[in-house]
Amino acid sequence: MVLQPGSCKRRRDATLPCLGKFPLGPGPPRAQWRFLVVNPAPAPASLRIPTFDDVQTARARIAGAAHRTPVLTSRTADAQAGATVFFKAENLQRAGAFKFRGAYNAIAALDARSRQNGVVAFSSGNHAQALAYAARLQGVSATVVMPRDAPEIKVAATRGYGAEIVFYDRYTEDRAEISLRLAADRGAALIPPYDHPDVIAGQGTAALELIEDVGEIDLLVVPLGGGGLLPGSALSARALLPACSIVGVEPEAGNDGQQSLRKGEVVQIPVPKSIADGALVTHVGNHNFAILKDTVDDIVTVTDGQLVETMRFFAERMKIVVEPTGCLAAAGVLQGAIACGGKRVGILLSGGNIDLKTFSALLERRAFR
Amino acid sequence: MVLQPGSCKRRRDATLPCLGKFPLGPGPPRAQWRFLVVNPAPAPASLRIPTFDDVQTARARIAGAAHRTPVLTSRTADAQAGATVFFKAENLQRAGAFKFRGAYNAIAALDARSRQNGVVAFSSGNHAQALAYAARLQGVSATVVMPRDAPEIKVAATRGYGAEIVFYDRYTEDRAEISLRLAADRGAALIPPYDHPDVIAGQGTAALELIEDVGEIDLLVVPLGGGGLLPGSALSARALLPACSIVGVEPEAGNDGQQSLRKGEVVQIPVPKSIADGALVTHVGNHNFAILKDTVDDIVTVTDGQLVETMRFFAERMKIVVEPTGCLAAAGVLQGAIACGGKRVGILLSGGNIDLKTFSALLERRAFR
Repeated sequence: MVLQPGSCKRRRDATLPCLGKFPLGPGPPRAQWRFLVVNPAPAPASLRIPTFDDVQTARARIAGAAHRTPVLTSRTADAQAGATVFFKAENLQRAGAFKFRGAYNAIAALDARSRQNGVVAFSSGNHAQALAYAARLQGVSATVVMPRDAPEIKVAATRGYGAEIVFYDRYTEDRAEISLRLAADRGAALIPPYDHPDVIAGQGTAALELIEDVGEIDLLVVPLGGGGLLPGSALSARALLPACSIVGVEPEAGNDGQQSLRKGEVVQIPVPKSIADGALVTHVGNHNFAILKDTVDDIVTVTDGQLVETMRFFAERMKIVVEPTGCLAAAGVLQGAIACGGKRVGILLSGGNIDLKTFSALLERRAFR
Repeated sequence: MVLQPGSCKRRRDATLPCLGKFPLGPGPPRAQWRFLVVNPAPAPASLRIPTFDDVQTARARIAGAAHRTPVLTSRTADAQAGATVFFKAENLQRAGAFKFRGAYNAIAALDARSRQNGVVAFSSGNHAQALAYAARLQGVSATVVMPRDAPEIKVAATRGYGAEIVFYDRYTEDRAEISLRLAADRGAALIPPYDHPDVIAGQGTAALELIEDVGEIDLLVVPLGGGGLLPGSALSARALLPACSIVGVEPEAGNDGQQSLRKGEVVQIPVPKSIADGALVTHVGNHNFAILKDTVDDIVTVTDGQLVETMRFFAERMKIVVEPTGCLAAAGVLQGAIACGGKRVGILLSGGNIDLKTFSALLERRAFR
């Protein structure tokens, strides 16, 4: 059997089945995929789009495993936004980001045989660590494909969670291809970082908890990268608060989601450059866009400078560490990109994983000004 | 009427009536004190020592005003301590520290006339800001006596809370004397930072919430400065969990509490030098010691280096900003000063107020190594 995973450069057709941000060629007949990839993203016509029921199922699965993160408030933030603002602090989630929810849920959804064979991830960011951690907690073996020159701290953290690490050369090798081969060899489930129904459903539990905790809100603002958190959140908000507006926030340099929403189809952009390193995707996932286009009211952008100011605000006034990507939604509200005068506004802080050296440089504005 | 507030240098008799850390001379007859100071600390024989009932009263008073701060957990911290550790995150309290609890409670306890006349504080640290904030929320005017060269950020924050600021020259003037005169002129209540029964009772609500949230613990570890938080916490723990051990943690350079506990009386030391700037007191308060001596099992110390490592741990692994003083108890547990193998351990993180420049310098270990 020959698989031909294409890179984004080679295959730009956004309607192709998509695995993470790596569109695949047509490949083998779908019947054979189960040996390779659990829940691969099929063609849009047959996408398995999660619903609020799936979010509720996810919530039951992750109960006791994921932290129920606190909702934080600040009079200073309220004054700055001219609104009543509720921050769902997913930077305080296990492994430092909301990603743990989706990863844990996707593993919990596997059948017994798949669990025996383990899971594979090829993200080098928050998803990989979340998956490794979630796998260990469920007694499932995890393999993470990482570039040989990945930061030592990330390698150590992922290994610390008990995952096997397979290194690749980012200049000569294709991580998707390596991951697919690994998954095929082991009959393991490849769990992509966002383009996956169980991942999306898991991420939706954060907004569900937020709404349970604070009651009615008029506006929900969520960071947008590949689109795991925003569509998941939208499922919860649409089901619980039909009148609530839902707005996504992207880095200005990577506004593929905004373009996609306006055009009504997935738009692909060159790899963007921003300090929001969790949102440097070239296009949102197919499952993700299928939800976004029907549920999200608007997608706005913020600059790197606005992210830094927001990060400083969180450290100085709210005493929390939020990584630049995690500041996207808050920057949209606190820096004025989103009009929310007088409203009750829920904001998702998506993560806090930033190395201390970069963090302190940004705090002192030694970079990005 | 002539008041003669002495400085610590002039009057070292720890058994004298004490206002904060400024022992007073005998002064006017007690009957006249109500015009000057509400609840001045009388001689030990007649101290009004708060009880757990006072903590419960305080809890009712601060409900809805103070944040019910979250309890955070971390598998990494558990592994490091060899215990199950619960962090009560008072760095996420309003105004950035537990001080808000005691300040709010002390103001709420004033009678109508005193409230009309306002409150006076002379701390330039967390207490002043907490008092200013708590006063504004209760519609009481606050005056804070601050050194003319106080950091602009502290002046701005205190003024931002609506307090009047009276500057003094720290090299030629006595802030206690100025505060007393102000309080006398206005009939205002002078609320000291820790040596006060209503302040102590208010601080005790943090441990009360912690125990409510996590249930039984074997060991409660609390930072010790002047002794507001530790005795308040001890009142709650002794009442709710009689078998729970209670340990205070001081900076190595300022172990007056440890010496006092061992000697059985308040020991005074020279002004200590440590990055734990919230614990640089020369001796614990009289009300405070009266509780400590009967309830606290031990007081241990940690070094500045251990505080920095702990602060880095919180930023890197738990995504929170904890000031050095706020790290005292955690450092005692995580850096091995306290044996807690296999126990369920509650730890109070007392505050997060540190300027970003100092914070980032410490994160990068550009200081204190």
